[in-house]
Amino acid sequence: MIIKNARILTMTEENPFLDGYDIKIENGVICEIAKDIPVQCCEVIDAHSKLVLPGFVNTHTHASMVFARNYANDLNLQDWLFNYIFPAEDKLTLEDCYWFSLAAQLEMISGGTTTCSDNYFFMDATVNAAEVSGIRAQLARSVSGISDPDCKKLKEAVEFCKRNNGVFNSRITTTISPHSIYTSDEAYLRKVLTEAQKLSLGINMHLSETATEVNDCYAQRGVSPIKYVKDLGYFDVEGPLVGAHCVHLSDEDISILADHNVSVASNLTSNLKLASGILPMDRLLKAGVNVSLGTDGASSHNRLSLMNELRLASILFKGLYQDPAVLPAKDALRLATVNGARALGLNNLGTITVGAKADIILISTQSLNMTPVNDPYASIAYSSCESDVDTVIIDGTVVMKNREFTGVDVENVKYEVKKRTERILGGC
Amino acid sequence: MIIKNARILTMTEENPFLDGYDIKIENGVICEIAKDIPVQCCEVIDAHSKLVLPGFVNTHTHASMVFARNYANDLNLQDWLFNYIFPAEDKLTLEDCYWFSLAAQLEMISGGTTTCSDNYFFMDATVNAAEVSGIRAQLARSVSGISDPDCKKLKEAVEFCKRNNGVFNSRITTTISPHSIYTSDEAYLRKVLTEAQKLSLGINMHLSETATEVNDCYAQRGVSPIKYVKDLGYFDVEGPLVGAHCVHLSDEDISILADHNVSVASNLTSNLKLASGILPMDRLLKAGVNVSLGTDGASSHNRLSLMNELRLASILFKGLYQDPAVLPAKDALRLATVNGARALGLNNLGTITVGAKADIILISTQSLNMTPVNDPYASIAYSSCESDVDTVIIDGTVVMKNREFTGVDVENVKYEVKKRTERILGGC
Repeated sequence: MIIKNARILTMTEENPFLDGYDIKIENGVICEIAKDIPVQCCEVIDAHSKLVLPGFVNTHTHASMVFARNYANDLNLQDWLFNYIFPAEDKLTLEDCYWFSLAAQLEMISGGTTTCSDNYFFMDATVNAAEVSGIRAQLARSVSGISDPDCKKLKEAVEFCKRNNGVFNSRITTTISPHSIYTSDEAYLRKVLTEAQKLSLGINMHLSETATEVNDCYAQRGVSPIKYVKDLGYFDVEGPLVGAHCVHLSDEDISILADHNVSVASNLTSNLKLASGILPMDRLLKAGVNVSLGTDGASSHNRLSLMNELRLASILFKGLYQDPAVLPAKDALRLATVNGARALGLNNLGTITVGAKADIILISTQSLNMTPVNDPYASIAYSSCESDVDTVIIDGTVVMKNREFTGVDVENVKYEVKKRTERILGGC
Repeated sequence: MIIKNARILTMTEENPFLDGYDIKIENGVICEIAKDIPVQCCEVIDAHSKLVLPGFVNTHTHASMVFARNYANDLNLQDWLFNYIFPAEDKLTLEDCYWFSLAAQLEMISGGTTTCSDNYFFMDATVNAAEVSGIRAQLARSVSGISDPDCKKLKEAVEFCKRNNGVFNSRITTTISPHSIYTSDEAYLRKVLTEAQKLSLGINMHLSETATEVNDCYAQRGVSPIKYVKDLGYFDVEGPLVGAHCVHLSDEDISILADHNVSVASNLTSNLKLASGILPMDRLLKAGVNVSLGTDGASSHNRLSLMNELRLASILFKGLYQDPAVLPAKDALRLATVNGARALGLNNLGTITVGAKADIILISTQSLNMTPVNDPYASIAYSSCESDVDTVIIDGTVVMKNREFTGVDVENVKYEVKKRTERILGGC
């Protein structure tokens, strides 16, 4: 496959912008970037009037939660989770989660996301959905001690990793995901850690999301959630480490994250909407912590647009710190691409370079909101809409072209989501 | 015209939600809302699977500034305005402003905005554009003392109002717009006030946008910008009063706004992006000030999506105040509709009621991001994309249907914008 006449935002330091170049893809990998590559019996994608960049990486979501989109609003996280979400989740089946995951993955792709990190349950259904949608995903069967007295679910999580890590030409990777410190006791968290160590996998967990979580941890243990899991040995595992949310952080917490190469999956919209707060972006970036972007589930966002997170990141901190030079468009785009790839330990991802995985999006500049462009980075960070994403390539396969999915009946997916939501939430 | 089978978010207190109703429109006005209205020789719009609500009201923009979209980013307002924007504006012609205004109006319409308040210059071009786009607009020739030593521009502004107030079946109204207190001296501001009084028109001006503006005002005059213009008599005029931005407000300022029925046009994205700050939404709403939403110009936003402002308003303050019950979806939608109409003194606008102007939008619920709906208000505030806006009716005329403009060649508009931008900004 060759992408012709591309205006490329490579997201590399050396050659950040290439105008009028072609990109050649073979076996899911970018094998050449040059002017006028000869076209020989291969698929050609015309990138005229489009901006070409690495696909967005969504480092924290729960795809199956689309059923609860806009269900139970305007509540704080603890109330929302324990009194509304957990009871509704008890009604979910494996087949529900297939359809919900598939809808979520398609929604993400349609907004330019090519990779997501997803932890939930019935994750075999999510793997099956990823086979169909074509999305790249790092998946975990989420576990928590309060709902796993006999460690059956932890065993499930381990088996899930063994069965699925590296499938679909390594498009699926796996990780270990204890939900949080407030849904597991110390003994359970130690068991989870042991399994991660045995598998040489990373850990992805909710950390310091709310003031309640942090205050309770100090009250019960005298330390912050981050210090607590660090002392347990969580940050000494081999695989990539992701702390989701990380809203309420002390300076010591930030030093720990930086020293142990723990990436942060910020979820700006979710944290605002659920009134959890705003993470200290300035202190995190200054300390050299790898900050990436996540959407959280559609139930707390309430949509799965990484582009929206990118837009919010690019404006929020300028206003909050009253400094217009904070997170310029190009840096904000790094959060959405290279930083996300690094967070998930996928180092051959997140840039347009020879040897990188061919996860590429083409963003049209033909809409009114993209006219005129003036600055390609700023036009994506500040002006683009999800509907400007024209073509999405993942692992060298075109999964969306001219905004049409190539291999899925979307109408059927939506039908299944609506029907199953009605059963679960009772015709909301 | 009849809209059939509508799920209506009326934005009224009494009957907020009507399911399966028809809306009959005659002479640009809603004349009946009932079930099963007979269809007799009239245009029928099928609202099946769509949410029907009043069009959004954008209470502060500068439409012609689309040419500077994503030009000169990451600067503070004063630097951006005086060193980049003002010099570029010197190159603008009347014809440029026609095409830029038209593009901006179409962009607004395509995201569900049916009314905008726009102050800039070459405003006759903006009136001509509004004739073509079909948008409802409250317009002003913006004036400032520093660029108007002989009051020629003020005279222009007055003549503009006389010529255009009430044209196109009252779709165009006019107002008086002194740019700000920092671009005019007191003598000039008094002259502007006199003209507003003579014309019995309202005043719409930038107020307390940055800390610099407020601090300078205190240093020079010992009072805040709001107290200063109040003491000049600005808030005693007959017409509607709009303070744009109002980011930095004392408690006294807020009391003045409330007591004098001055509406606030908040511009959340612009204020964040230009690092001006975040307006005190909690104190404003508590004091009963009428807060509405604006996009500002595309040069500082950098797009003209009121839906984006609605989304931002609905999440930002929950997170900032760490209270998830702040501005529930329905209240946020009020900012975008009824409050906007009230700000502009257009009291027959902003609700779906018999007797109201037929400014109506149909939002599709068929996209992945709107599936499932669960809660109609929340689905619009939190989950919708601009591309979900399917049909836009303004003053009883369908200006966009199935996302196609009914009376404009959009390709030509974009061509003109690109060509003219290249001349002005030099091929950015």
